[in-house]
Amino acid sequence: MSHEKHRFSLNNGFVVKQKGHKGFTQIHTAVCTCIYPPIVLMFSLTPPQLFGSKKDGVKQAEIQGLLKYGWHTEAMVLTAIRGELVVIPVEWSWLTLSRVLFSRQEVMKWNGWGYSDSRFLFNKKGQAEFTGRRYRLSGMVLPSLKDWFESTFGASLQHKSPATATLNASAVPFPSLNEAFLQDLKSTGIPFSHEAEDRVFRAHGHCLHEIFALREGKFGRVPDLVVWPNCHEDVVKTVDLACRHNVCLIPYGGGTSVSSALECPPDETRCIVSLDTSQMSRILWIDEKNLTAHVEAGIVGQDLERLLNESGYCTGHEPDSMEFSSLGGWVATRASGMKKNVYGNIEDLVVHIKMVCPRGVVEKSCQGPRVSIGPDIHHFIMGSEGTLGVVTEVTIKIRPMPEYQKYGSVVFPNFEQGVACLREVAKQRCAPASIRLMDNAQFQFGHALKPQVSSIFTSFLDGLKKFYITKFKGFDPHHLCVATLLFEGDRERVLQHEKQVYDIAAKFGGLAAGEDNGQRGYMLTFVIAYLRDLGMDYYVIGESFETSVPWDRVLDLCRNVKERIVRECRERGVQFPPLATCRCVCVSLSLTLTLREALDRRDLEHISAEELGRRGGPFPDVTS
Amino acid sequence: MSHEKHRFSLNNGFVVKQKGHKGFTQIHTAVCTCIYPPIVLMFSLTPPQLFGSKKDGVKQAEIQGLLKYGWHTEAMVLTAIRGELVVIPVEWSWLTLSRVLFSRQEVMKWNGWGYSDSRFLFNKKGQAEFTGRRYRLSGMVLPSLKDWFESTFGASLQHKSPATATLNASAVPFPSLNEAFLQDLKSTGIPFSHEAEDRVFRAHGHCLHEIFALREGKFGRVPDLVVWPNCHEDVVKTVDLACRHNVCLIPYGGGTSVSSALECPPDETRCIVSLDTSQMSRILWIDEKNLTAHVEAGIVGQDLERLLNESGYCTGHEPDSMEFSSLGGWVATRASGMKKNVYGNIEDLVVHIKMVCPRGVVEKSCQGPRVSIGPDIHHFIMGSEGTLGVVTEVTIKIRPMPEYQKYGSVVFPNFEQGVACLREVAKQRCAPASIRLMDNAQFQFGHALKPQVSSIFTSFLDGLKKFYITKFKGFDPHHLCVATLLFEGDRERVLQHEKQVYDIAAKFGGLAAGEDNGQRGYMLTFVIAYLRDLGMDYYVIGESFETSVPWDRVLDLCRNVKERIVRECRERGVQFPPLATCRCVCVSLSLTLTLREALDRRDLEHISAEELGRRGGPFPDVTS
Repeated sequence: MSHEKHRFSLNNGFVVKQKGHKGFTQIHTAVCTCIYPPIVLMFSLTPPQLFGSKKDGVKQAEIQGLLKYGWHTEAMVLTAIRGELVVIPVEWSWLTLSRVLFSRQEVMKWNGWGYSDSRFLFNKKGQAEFTGRRYRLSGMVLPSLKDWFESTFGASLQHKSPATATLNASAVPFPSLNEAFLQDLKSTGIPFSHEAEDRVFRAHGHCLHEIFALREGKFGRVPDLVVWPNCHEDVVKTVDLACRHNVCLIPYGGGTSVSSALECPPDETRCIVSLDTSQMSRILWIDEKNLTAHVEAGIVGQDLERLLNESGYCTGHEPDSMEFSSLGGWVATRASGMKKNVYGNIEDLVVHIKMVCPRGVVEKSCQGPRVSIGPDIHHFIMGSEGTLGVVTEVTIKIRPMPEYQKYGSVVFPNFEQGVACLREVAKQRCAPASIRLMDNAQFQFGHALKPQVSSIFTSFLDGLKKFYITKFKGFDPHHLCVATLLFEGDRERVLQHEKQVYDIAAKFGGLAAGEDNGQRGYMLTFVIAYLRDLGMDYYVIGESFETSVPWDRVLDLCRNVKERIVRECRERGVQFPPLATCRCVCVSLSLTLTLREALDRRDLEHISAEELGRRGGPFPDVTS
Repeated sequence: MSHEKHRFSLNNGFVVKQKGHKGFTQIHTAVCTCIYPPIVLMFSLTPPQLFGSKKDGVKQAEIQGLLKYGWHTEAMVLTAIRGELVVIPVEWSWLTLSRVLFSRQEVMKWNGWGYSDSRFLFNKKGQAEFTGRRYRLSGMVLPSLKDWFESTFGASLQHKSPATATLNASAVPFPSLNEAFLQDLKSTGIPFSHEAEDRVFRAHGHCLHEIFALREGKFGRVPDLVVWPNCHEDVVKTVDLACRHNVCLIPYGGGTSVSSALECPPDETRCIVSLDTSQMSRILWIDEKNLTAHVEAGIVGQDLERLLNESGYCTGHEPDSMEFSSLGGWVATRASGMKKNVYGNIEDLVVHIKMVCPRGVVEKSCQGPRVSIGPDIHHFIMGSEGTLGVVTEVTIKIRPMPEYQKYGSVVFPNFEQGVACLREVAKQRCAPASIRLMDNAQFQFGHALKPQVSSIFTSFLDGLKKFYITKFKGFDPHHLCVATLLFEGDRERVLQHEKQVYDIAAKFGGLAAGEDNGQRGYMLTFVIAYLRDLGMDYYVIGESFETSVPWDRVLDLCRNVKERIVRECRERGVQFPPLATCRCVCVSLSLTLTLREALDRRDLEHISAEELGRRGGPFPDVTS
């Protein structure tokens, strides 16, 4: 069953088929603009009795299986599953973005970050705005961004470097297919495609050089084939066939890799197959007594949280990429999350992993909470970046959703004081679920993102003024820095905890600066990822790195990396000095680097990584 | 330099040598009865000027080096280091038990648990007492123990099964030495011995069958040689020689293994060398900014804590074996500790590991707090039980010593309520540093350990009566069970925390039962380990196992293991029903099993382990 062949057609003799392709393609198109999260169409099927009434077992069943059941309801969601038009009732809220990502091209950008409909742009009036309707900032105008952008980077709205608009399929290398593999694959019924679009979408992660090449319309070696296994057994079959026919497999989850792990080796002559896990996105069971959930590895973060939330649970694992990154990806890259102070990193959350390797399936023989014998195979798998096998199923710890959440923020006279405060918080082991310290440059940048509409998005500076109109006078806006906080737990303990942290902050000259300012920081997290694409439209490139260092090297590291970047750019003839900013969380450190017209983009990544390594950061921590 | 050759002689032409061997051997003998912790002898050296005054650099220097310096002080400790008489000043408090353990035979039992001078026995009046002066229970009479012992096990003081009194060196297999290895080893200067005593002491851990065989005077295959490397480089040399000469190495730390990992394969014909890490016991550095310490792996737990405490720090890692088990052993066996709720297990504490393997030294290239790339080699090492190499140095997280400690206890109407309470405590993530739930049989047993002297050791039952003279009436002494608690932190938070835990306990019918009862429970921890030897003097054998299970299987596991043990014993013709008890901590579960006259001791271990495995306990957790 080739994906290509069945795209936009319906199967299984359904009633909807009788309405003909054209009508549904129209509706489909309409829905695709907002294909996720599912929207409700009041779509009356006549005659309704054509659908059966067998409602049991829906949650666990397959989409394919459900098509066979039929269904009777008036509230319908129309969406595309596996390239087929499917009418599904709204009760099926378990429909996941993962599943929709079968056709990434219908939801996501091909040469930039995130959803197709969401982007920063400068409108005809020269004002920055953020498009779409998915985020709280969507549809808003950001009057300060243009000035900040032009003055910081020396960019000009007159000098554009727009991306290639559409994916030119004819420029994509022709697939080098292994016919014997293909024949055997067909007999398994596992969907596959060798369409150029499908292959290009799975040929890259989100490193600067990867996106830059796409914007230029350049495609290097891309996978020759994409397969969409639907379950663990499908992966076993695929890996088995790959071994038998000497075919390379690259596991593909959410595609948010920033470690170049998705790049195809340019000199690989064998057939390269991208194994897309998106269709393995079911929660197979939730164990409410032991607080664990067994989940297919292709589920993306936002789906996992949403589905668990419906049952009153959460994992608490929230990497900045969680909108699109997958559970299997978290495991394979040993991910950390924003709230790891309370919930732990992925290695603390995983109870069991099932991984398909060339020599068989690797998994522990138990779901026990801890085993003292070793070696621990989970730690072979975590961080292996897909080199050892395909993670197919994961048992993960869950918790009841926190009863109470409270944001907060603290402003410090300078970065040094802020770091000292974080160190003390860590020492006293009282870090909130999240604590992030932004340097002055990031603070200024946040100010530039203030939207026209007065709301929660009022700028941090305005917020501060409102709070500390007098006290604030003692702070130099060119040196102050800001920490945003998120507390979680039961109300009483959150309030105790909050007091403890603010008391510590006060010892380091920190002033509490309100909930709104904190919340705003977190709400911008997902939106900020879209900014790099705007920069690239005007010859400005950017990249971010994460690392972890011992506490006593934090300040040195930040200073040295910034200095080194500035020096290297100067030596390489970059006209305008770069903007290097940093953010410090309780264990890791994130460096963001933005500059104009660097001569060699790969060099920049290399230099930064080298400096991080030299300064005690072991390796850039690439799981953001 | 052979150990054998230099034993009880002095070198380096020291003043003490002039006094002749005999006098010093006498003092040596006296001191050996209390060789650790070091005691102070007001031992005046005349003429004192024979000692130099070069005091610098002592902490980091070698004992051997110090002998060359000389030293001037009146307060002296006399002890045996490397089988040589050494006079050392008391300021050298960094003298560790590890170092003393060069001659284990001078401090430890050869066929039972712990220090030679500490044991339970029935005195001439038929009363139980605990000998020695090392523990708070030492020197006390325990009037209730005899009745409990006789009625519980059907034992009788008239029917003794005493152990072989002395180690019969002639019954120890003659060492099978690899002469070429030995020649090369001699050239390295690393001390070694092929004395029967040294080899027997390092031929076993503390599994029931191991100790049982020793008591019977039976020695299976024992190591042919013992070596005492003094540092990482010595280990590199030793491993290199072992590879070159096809010699087997078994790393030996504190000797408290309960996984049979120290047993020599009976059919091994190659020379087996026990690599004793005890002489590698230095704290190489403490990093107060990043709160880490870099320590040689041979240091035993009590030394590590004591030395860190002197600088105001602790690791908080307190396995029940910490008196004797070593840092390297914790790493190699993936140890857990009593206070892991707050401090974490060994895998949470380790920052860096240096391990000498046959193919070279394995270590990470950084001391970073977390690295996202994988696989993580630490998790190859932890739990490897010495099969992959010798752990020589470890960087471990340290913390400032807790400002405030508070013990506590709760009595529950029955075990089920107690387990439900622990589950809720875990769910609310508010477990104290330690929480241990003992079943009714352990509670009764604790009562039997009440000493004659009224003190903190008043029985739990008495303690309870004092606290809840009225409320307590509602509890059935044959069903109630007890949890002991230990809170740590700053005073205010400990008090908050305590309230929270007692509030939860109250919901499950738990009554707070006082600090003393809690403290007593923890103080008995180290003493209880000596009880098995008393049992074996009267045909009673015992063993304990640990495992971890999902919460919903805890009660089933406890019941089924107990039932299975009783059934198996009956079927095997054991006259008196066994006593099987259990203790539940927040993640792991410890089963203690004591019975009389089991026909085959290995069978018992096997059956218990099998049942643990079948009931959801993945594997017996063997790091106690």
